[in-house]
Amino acid sequence: MKMTAQSAWSDLLAIREQAPLVHNITNYVVMNTTANALLAIGASPVMAHAEEEVADMVSIAKALVVNIGTLSKEWIQSMQKAMRQAKNCGVPIVLDPVGAGATSYRTNTSIKLLSMSPVTIIRGNASEIIAIAQNGSNTKGVDSTSESDSAVDAARELNGRYGSVVCITGETDIIVSRDKTAKIMNGDAMMPRVTGLGCTASALCGAFLGVNASAFAAAIDAMVVMGIAGEMAAEQAKGPGSFQMHFLDMLYTMTEADILNRMKLVL
Amino acid sequence: MKMTAQSAWSDLLAIREQAPLVHNITNYVVMNTTANALLAIGASPVMAHAEEEVADMVSIAKALVVNIGTLSKEWIQSMQKAMRQAKNCGVPIVLDPVGAGATSYRTNTSIKLLSMSPVTIIRGNASEIIAIAQNGSNTKGVDSTSESDSAVDAARELNGRYGSVVCITGETDIIVSRDKTAKIMNGDAMMPRVTGLGCTASALCGAFLGVNASAFAAAIDAMVVMGIAGEMAAEQAKGPGSFQMHFLDMLYTMTEADILNRMKLVL
Amino acid sequence: MKMTAQSAWSDLLAIREQAPLVHNITNYVVMNTTANALLAIGASPVMAHAEEEVADMVSIAKALVVNIGTLSKEWIQSMQKAMRQAKNCGVPIVLDPVGAGATSYRTNTSIKLLSMSPVTIIRGNASEIIAIAQNGSNTKGVDSTSESDSAVDAARELNGRYGSVVCITGETDIIVSRDKTAKIMNGDAMMPRVTGLGCTASALCGAFLGVNASAFAAAIDAMVVMGIAGEMAAEQAKGPGSFQMHFLDMLYTMTEADILNRMKLVL
Repeated sequence: MKMTAQSAWSDLLAIREQAPLVHNITNYVVMNTTANALLAIGASPVMAHAEEEVADMVSIAKALVVNIGTLSKEWIQSMQKAMRQAKNCGVPIVLDPVGAGATSYRTNTSIKLLSMSPVTIIRGNASEIIAIAQNGSNTKGVDSTSESDSAVDAARELNGRYGSVVCITGETDIIVSRDKTAKIMNGDAMMPRVTGLGCTASALCGAFLGVNASAFAAAIDAMVVMGIAGEMAAEQAKGPGSFQMHFLDMLYTMTEADILNRMKLVL
Repeated sequence: MKMTAQSAWSDLLAIREQAPLVHNITNYVVMNTTANALLAIGASPVMAHAEEEVADMVSIAKALVVNIGTLSKEWIQSMQKAMRQAKNCGVPIVLDPVGAGATSYRTNTSIKLLSMSPVTIIRGNASEIIAIAQNGSNTKGVDSTSESDSAVDAARELNGRYGSVVCITGETDIIVSRDKTAKIMNGDAMMPRVTGLGCTASALCGAFLGVNASAFAAAIDAMVVMGIAGEMAAEQAKGPGSFQMHFLDMLYTMTEADILNRMKLVL
Repeated sequence: MKMTAQSAWSDLLAIREQAPLVHNITNYVVMNTTANALLAIGASPVMAHAEEEVADMVSIAKALVVNIGTLSKEWIQSMQKAMRQAKNCGVPIVLDPVGAGATSYRTNTSIKLLSMSPVTIIRGNASEIIAIAQNGSNTKGVDSTSESDSAVDAARELNGRYGSVVCITGETDIIVSRDKTAKIMNGDAMMPRVTGLGCTASALCGAFLGVNASAFAAAIDAMVVMGIAGEMAAEQAKGPGSFQMHFLDMLYTMTEADILNRMKLVL
């Protein structure tokens, strides 16, 4: 546990020193806040979606983050082109299937993207992870007794099918790889009251993949840092407006002691 | 008066309890801040504009908010599709004709959208309301003695033509239905110094329509809550940056006493 | 020096009094923050990118700001149309070649736009200015001894080729016109940790062009006001989250004394 905390800290330090370039093809709602969260932890964000340049941009990036929050046909084409290039260049990919399950367009797009290039980390909430696992399989539903258990089953299914590490965020964040599971109990109830913090979580996965080749470790790092920043921000916030401000400040100022003292991880 | 304040409070409580899904097809400038305002009052925002999914999204929403702030041809097609579906499903529609009058593209688009599906609430500033009333009619202009009076005449014209409740925002917010008019004198001079608060006003109309079927009541609720949050934020702000932060915090923390003590409504 | 400070102040006052309309065709990441910065200094921002309306919008604007941060084919067409109209109407143009050099798409688009209409001010960082100067010329590279010197050489090259005043932002901001150079040493190391402050710098150039016909003076004004607001914000900020908030507040509250006491300009 202490070793993992030190590893999260050394990865955060590596981001601050190396400023890995994270290429985001993400939704309009969160472009600004995602870029600011990446800058606050020390990474170097770029947003680019034109079919004419995504391949060039991926080839100089340390990670590609694909987020389907505000889809359209042209953007899906660019996502596909970027993911093909990432595969060719060995750049790790994070997929955020925002709203999968809410419309079939989102569910189907998620599955189409997963099928074409190996996705390093899938980051979604329980209902999104369940939606893409069910829709792409022949199973007749999930019979676990809680949504959280169902999501873990769905994550195992997705890991088996695509080889991706799956990061399920919620009150407890759960990270599933082929043979390991991690649970992170950091965070605060204010976090879902700010738009796009899930998208930020996905972007931070990209930043940590830029300095740590282990997808399981990178996802743990990202959730630990998110959760601790959220806790510390909530302690000072009077509502979701001030929470947002403190959250960015906490990403920027987080110390080794913050991580050592606060990390709640079960491996 | 006191009864209306209690009704505004009970509708706000209903939003916090039911978290109505508000589907926004809105402009790039305000997507983030609109989503955050909806989350802060307790609603559940979704932004989706793809022609492939707007009908699905509308059918699970409690209100549709269409905002023409950053138009393009493809977005207009999606707005039309979403509005047809809203009509079919009985989902109330809010239209925000941002910048109508500034370019004929915006004026004409507003009128085209109004003509195709019944719009529950039109929310704009005086010049926007006047622009769409004039351009779509054969009248030779407005002869009222002030812009505010002209806007009320224009609102009556639009109500007669389309059946919509019209919400004119400004120093005094004026709400016009077939047989009633309401004036709300809450708010603060700092509000126009923050981009997109008009768009937020329209989105909040959508949230209140999600819990109150009366368009007149929902528009009053939204303007009262906006105005009071604006006043309380301005009391603590040092400029438009801190105003934004406090505004979201106030939407989140607003109490029954805040509404009872501060509401300035003339029916 | 004192005279320039008074001129920066009188131009800022003119913006607050006249609220010049600044038409921005800019990237998704910064639309909200750019609009808020323009509102905070007293200008009147509009974002519009549809080919159907850009010409109408330019014709009522005092300045056009074109920013290539999130390009696509359709947006380039609208930028070209808006720039042609700006040329016809005598509306000054600011070009922000975001990411030129990172992909050939961005470098080539910057050069294409520069070649078609006279750009009043080009605002970029050193690597962007160098990239567009090199790619559009037959020179075999730059032989200055530092990136800052190289950028000044590149700026002279661009000024000779296109007649534009070039504003290179960085730790020291350097403004190059045909026969004059200015250096501004205001600002703070926190500024690059907030996304889009370069884009804000370009937008403020547009606002000052709306009240001062001298491109050299307008660029100096904008960099002085940006840098001083950044310094004052950093003195109160705990990280990039609170920095953003204070920055907008400082643009809004800046006094003549702030400019007189803090301006660090070398002509």
